[in-house]
Amino acid sequence: MAVARRWVLGLAGTGLAGIAGGALIRGARDSAATVTGPPDAVPFHGPVQAGIVTPAQDRLHFTAFDVVTKDRDRLVRMLREWTAAAARMTAGRDAGEIGAVAGILEAPPDDTGEAIGLPPSALTLTVGFGPDLFRPGRFGLSGRKPAALADLPHFPGDLIKPAISGGDLCVQACANDPQVAVHAIRNLARIGMGVVSVRWSQLGFGRTSSTSATQDTPRNLFGFKDGTRNLKAEETDLLRQHLWVQPGDGPEWMTGGSYLVTRKVRMLIETWDRTSLGEQETIVGRTKGVGAALGRSGEFDEIDLTARNGDGDPTIPVDAHVRLAHPDENRGARMLRRGYNFVDGSDGLGRLDAGLFFIAYQRDPRTAFVPVQLNLARLDAMNEYVRHVSTGLFACPPGVTGPDDHWGRELFN
Amino acid sequence: MAVARRWVLGLAGTGLAGIAGGALIRGARDSAATVTGPPDAVPFHGPVQAGIVTPAQDRLHFTAFDVVTKDRDRLVRMLREWTAAAARMTAGRDAGEIGAVAGILEAPPDDTGEAIGLPPSALTLTVGFGPDLFRPGRFGLSGRKPAALADLPHFPGDLIKPAISGGDLCVQACANDPQVAVHAIRNLARIGMGVVSVRWSQLGFGRTSSTSATQDTPRNLFGFKDGTRNLKAEETDLLRQHLWVQPGDGPEWMTGGSYLVTRKVRMLIETWDRTSLGEQETIVGRTKGVGAALGRSGEFDEIDLTARNGDGDPTIPVDAHVRLAHPDENRGARMLRRGYNFVDGSDGLGRLDAGLFFIAYQRDPRTAFVPVQLNLARLDAMNEYVRHVSTGLFACPPGVTGPDDHWGRELFN
Repeated sequence: MAVARRWVLGLAGTGLAGIAGGALIRGARDSAATVTGPPDAVPFHGPVQAGIVTPAQDRLHFTAFDVVTKDRDRLVRMLREWTAAAARMTAGRDAGEIGAVAGILEAPPDDTGEAIGLPPSALTLTVGFGPDLFRPGRFGLSGRKPAALADLPHFPGDLIKPAISGGDLCVQACANDPQVAVHAIRNLARIGMGVVSVRWSQLGFGRTSSTSATQDTPRNLFGFKDGTRNLKAEETDLLRQHLWVQPGDGPEWMTGGSYLVTRKVRMLIETWDRTSLGEQETIVGRTKGVGAALGRSGEFDEIDLTARNGDGDPTIPVDAHVRLAHPDENRGARMLRRGYNFVDGSDGLGRLDAGLFFIAYQRDPRTAFVPVQLNLARLDAMNEYVRHVSTGLFACPPGVTGPDDHWGRELFN
Repeated sequence: MAVARRWVLGLAGTGLAGIAGGALIRGARDSAATVTGPPDAVPFHGPVQAGIVTPAQDRLHFTAFDVVTKDRDRLVRMLREWTAAAARMTAGRDAGEIGAVAGILEAPPDDTGEAIGLPPSALTLTVGFGPDLFRPGRFGLSGRKPAALADLPHFPGDLIKPAISGGDLCVQACANDPQVAVHAIRNLARIGMGVVSVRWSQLGFGRTSSTSATQDTPRNLFGFKDGTRNLKAEETDLLRQHLWVQPGDGPEWMTGGSYLVTRKVRMLIETWDRTSLGEQETIVGRTKGVGAALGRSGEFDEIDLTARNGDGDPTIPVDAHVRLAHPDENRGARMLRRGYNFVDGSDGLGRLDAGLFFIAYQRDPRTAFVPVQLNLARLDAMNEYVRHVSTGLFACPPGVTGPDDHWGRELFN
């Protein structure tokens, strides 16, 4: 059953490969069926979706889709097909039963082939539903729209481009090999042809968050450690409180799910690079090397927002990023972040088009992302160096529990 | 001397890190100076530039620059500074002597910091000079322009966008960690501020070539193995014949160098994915699974262009990609390819903006890329599925031989 691409290829390399043709390659698969499964696969089935508290993989391909059909049944059928393909691909298998190269010559393959031979690479595929999907008169879902999926407000300074914002559906593909993430998105888009079309898509080349205590804190393109105080997979009590939708929070179909906010944050890195080290640290509120809060010495030392320096001024300035984002300044608000660095070429003005693709999961954006971002947008000293150009909001349901379950089953039930 | 970032960090993590400040961190560097060097560094100095026959790394950040100064001395000074920074960064060190976090607080750091803690990751930085740099009246180089650097012709079907084509200088950054490649380009751009500006920039997430017999053949986004018959580092006679500029080929400053052609090739993957497996294999001229030429059984089996099937038709069709690109159809022309898969988001029409960033090095484009591409552009069955949207041509000089040498020294001498 769960034969991974690389086992198939391993056999193919031993001599069978010489004989091109579907039957023999399928034979290779069958004979490898005793292999128990690839070692770097993240289980797809479970009570919550993988790709949220899963230790953040190195690479990202995030895609938002518009639903282009009006046919509810067709959409549900596609979600069922997506789920089956996602279960296969996260296990390192081809997207379809036949596969990339074992089909008949007269038909298009049911896998596009560029991941042949690549291991699962910790691929996770996480789905979310955007607010527009619930619009009255569309798919009969208006009564099921969670209050927490209320449109985000306009934040001061926002320079949002609608063409790369929003979307009816999203899929977050994370993997340690970008080819595996790209392959997964591309095959879901292929399967969805005629039902969905790609609205916008973002690659991230390097994680900027750790989501597990087992991971080091990575650096963003300001050169600073990012997400030191992130929620972590091990903090189960905090996750219940801040990450996972709880019974009674809203419609039942979202219990065990989480709300996803994406923001594409262009960084003006050339301007930042002309700023002194001291100024950079003052803006962030942490040292650049160790990542300690100003006035402290270790990365994980508790931040003291009340500390003052010899002049009586706050050690962490009133407009420092860490202060304004701190739970104590936001009624305890916390999120699980799993953002990625991006470079999208250049901007036509002689600069790299680079920054942070911010991703945050939370139990309710109205008491998490929204107040924190309002605080930052109004006061953050970092605003001089960032521009928010894309925004997204999605309701990510709980996990797919087994082969009979599928993405959106409870929602469309 | 050659202290890598990770050794510094290793020490920093033992307790010194707690005390922020340049002196102590510099102290840590000095005390680590007995370390001989990081294990995954590619030597920067040598008779030829690294990044050409170096086993193709997994990730790419390619950038073309416009020279914005008219001051020849300032340009040469920047090339000297670039060379010193490149030697440091390819060894896993900060871009400048002071570094990302050990400077005085009042000045901008001489490294941007996002690669702190990351190993060299086989980073190579390869520089090239574009035709426009030699324009009469610009830097006094018109007498030194190689004939082989003649502008490429317009090829049938070309849809070239000038804004993402050409350039006075290019830097190809390849590494196994994309953050390391991005960091290198970003710091060169920072050092070049006021002298150069970024014209265009391209990330590649996955290699599509092997440049060494030690590497497997990877797959492009058509799902096919790419570059099976590529020139390889081990084929020294062929490299002399086809890759490296030989004495007498042209101006002396290019001897030991190579000419670089880049082409951004958008692939219409959605259309391709609706094509049958047999049609795909007929277009490519190889099987999709094993990558064998049609009519053969192993990937590396010799292609027989004269073979005919039972109907008397050529086994490899007259318009198949492998036939038209084959040396026998192009007066023996061969190149060393080291291209990368890319996805640049979406195209606004519901499709992924994806394809191949083609990179090829050769002794003379007039007898290599140009005739091969003319052949392909006229006849290749694959043209229905590809669009060439960017083009670049650069003269890449021989290697930097030691600390007293620098990029462009012979050219500007």
